[in-house]
Amino acid sequence: MFTLLNTDNKARCGKLKTAHGEIKSPFFMTIATCGSVKGLRPEDVKKAGAQIVLGNTYHLHLRPGEDIVNKAGGLHNFMNWDKPILTDSGGFQVFSLAKLRKITERGVIFNSHIDGKKIFLTPEDSIRIQEKLNSDIIMCFDECTPHPCSEEYAEKSLKITTKWARRCKKIKKNKHQLLFGIVQGSVYPHLRIQSAKDLKKIDFDGYAIGGLAVGEPIKDMYKILDTTLPELPENKPRYLMGVGTPENILEAVERGVDMFDCVLPTRNARHGYLYTSSGILRIKKEEFKKDFTPIDSKCSCYSCQNFTRAYVRHLMISHELLGLQLCSIHNVFFYLKLMKNIRKHIQKNTFQKFKSDFLEQFNKKP
Amino acid sequence: MFTLLNTDNKARCGKLKTAHGEIKSPFFMTIATCGSVKGLRPEDVKKAGAQIVLGNTYHLHLRPGEDIVNKAGGLHNFMNWDKPILTDSGGFQVFSLAKLRKITERGVIFNSHIDGKKIFLTPEDSIRIQEKLNSDIIMCFDECTPHPCSEEYAEKSLKITTKWARRCKKIKKNKHQLLFGIVQGSVYPHLRIQSAKDLKKIDFDGYAIGGLAVGEPIKDMYKILDTTLPELPENKPRYLMGVGTPENILEAVERGVDMFDCVLPTRNARHGYLYTSSGILRIKKEEFKKDFTPIDSKCSCYSCQNFTRAYVRHLMISHELLGLQLCSIHNVFFYLKLMKNIRKHIQKNTFQKFKSDFLEQFNKKP
Repeated sequence: MFTLLNTDNKARCGKLKTAHGEIKSPFFMTIATCGSVKGLRPEDVKKAGAQIVLGNTYHLHLRPGEDIVNKAGGLHNFMNWDKPILTDSGGFQVFSLAKLRKITERGVIFNSHIDGKKIFLTPEDSIRIQEKLNSDIIMCFDECTPHPCSEEYAEKSLKITTKWARRCKKIKKNKHQLLFGIVQGSVYPHLRIQSAKDLKKIDFDGYAIGGLAVGEPIKDMYKILDTTLPELPENKPRYLMGVGTPENILEAVERGVDMFDCVLPTRNARHGYLYTSSGILRIKKEEFKKDFTPIDSKCSCYSCQNFTRAYVRHLMISHELLGLQLCSIHNVFFYLKLMKNIRKHIQKNTFQKFKSDFLEQFNKKP
Repeated sequence: MFTLLNTDNKARCGKLKTAHGEIKSPFFMTIATCGSVKGLRPEDVKKAGAQIVLGNTYHLHLRPGEDIVNKAGGLHNFMNWDKPILTDSGGFQVFSLAKLRKITERGVIFNSHIDGKKIFLTPEDSIRIQEKLNSDIIMCFDECTPHPCSEEYAEKSLKITTKWARRCKKIKKNKHQLLFGIVQGSVYPHLRIQSAKDLKKIDFDGYAIGGLAVGEPIKDMYKILDTTLPELPENKPRYLMGVGTPENILEAVERGVDMFDCVLPTRNARHGYLYTSSGILRIKKEEFKKDFTPIDSKCSCYSCQNFTRAYVRHLMISHELLGLQLCSIHNVFFYLKLMKNIRKHIQKNTFQKFKSDFLEQFNKKP
């Protein structure tokens, strides 16, 4: 399913075949938590260059429920999106959003963050839900350990996560869906290595690295990548979950990661934090009141082609819905353009120079 | 500037020439309070069939300020809208939104509803602001009397409003802008007639009927229209301000009104109240949970062409921005389609039948 096209040092570009089309890697998955990329229409997401979006199983299970999505013909039909979709397993949200009741080897009991309803979720349930959502890539149900996390707890948790991974693989029926395992083990290199080895034995269509970007120092994240990635098979895609800033992505690509997802572009947009070629621009600042240039004059997104900083600032200050749309469209476009450039430069074996040029420009003080 | 093309009993269709193009009447002006139709992009507004939008002088004066809009090249450039714009005078908002301090013959002292700042606004200021905004149709500064309003107060207020109208006409310099007078006089027929006669003498490019839809019984609104409209010149457009429901619009068109504006389509959209050919549909209701038909299967708007009731309901229940977009696009489309049909049927002298068919369908219980 995954074909490696070129490597530039450790950075890789390739293509991943899914039931809804091929995806060029490395790629970034824009978040569509509840079946919608916040502030964007499906057309906007496509125009921004998205090859795939990520839906959250936990949210969709609670609302509207996988049976309704299934009745609509699956998540693609429900949200009117015909390109690939990855769904997570719900694990991360159970541990971060819900009021957690109890973890047993069988599964997790928790309370819905929406109405407090008590819900029992097993690895088997997670796979069944994702099968009903009919996404293209589905994830194993795992425990995402928090930071900090004792070695003892991390080891105990990892054992359950590995058992759950086996059960997920076993219960999965739909052959059109790709199933990814998730490496856990907190910040402990030997646990990460063990996890990678165990999952490799189970044999998945791809491997995710979970439990990072949860508050650990950034150098720990890179260290874990350096430790874990060599343990993963070269012919399978590697997905760093929940990451990250443009810099994080570049660092991880350099180490051999193929897939990313993060709420940063859309969430930051809604707070008026806009990504530009010369760093983050806080559009609500007074200094943009009479600035009739685009958000980023080097950007060709809809927002930059049609509106000025002064107008976008005015919309954001006035709490106008259009402001949220324009900022979200811009940030998603920025992230996906970055990925496109990353792919181009890995293909041309010029990734290193691209990375350092990009970061120099992005991090320089305006 | 205004050409009458046909009359069907008292209903009129015509065209109004403005600096940014010709508008077919009767027409409805979608509200763009702060320089944006809430939830829609300029393209959406055009695709919905809008010929003109309405900007609020009061809001734009407070934020971002007319000088910034003027620096951007006027409101059209600022908001990236190249079709006609009407701005109101700010009068209505001063009386409805701001904490009013004092009305004198010279002008009005009030506190901004945003930051409480004390502001003094005269008829001359209102015209100067509207000239800076560079809208196509500008309105005289008036006192919009509330309901109920004593005859004594209505008469006293009307005298000031008429004097203000004269001052607005006198100060106006920009020949590309059309200036409309506003008939006031509360629910008192003789005051309305007096107001119409006085304004006619001053000679405006169009005449608005203000101070209705402020809480008076609906039959009073129609009675005032019946009394006032015959007093207005036939060769000038007649604008019923702030109205209204589809039924109100049909009733007013029947009596000879050419122009309307109202927040109903956009505001109702944000609450999930959707206009359909068979009445108002409350999309958040449980019954639409598994309804995979469009909002209105007879509608050809973007939302109805691409999404289902079940999905739109899910988005609204989940507070997703896309839900607000889809509902707003639909409602604006509905209103503008209604106006298009009204024009078509007046042209064909079949307005009466269209009106009764439409209302029968719209008001029938589902």
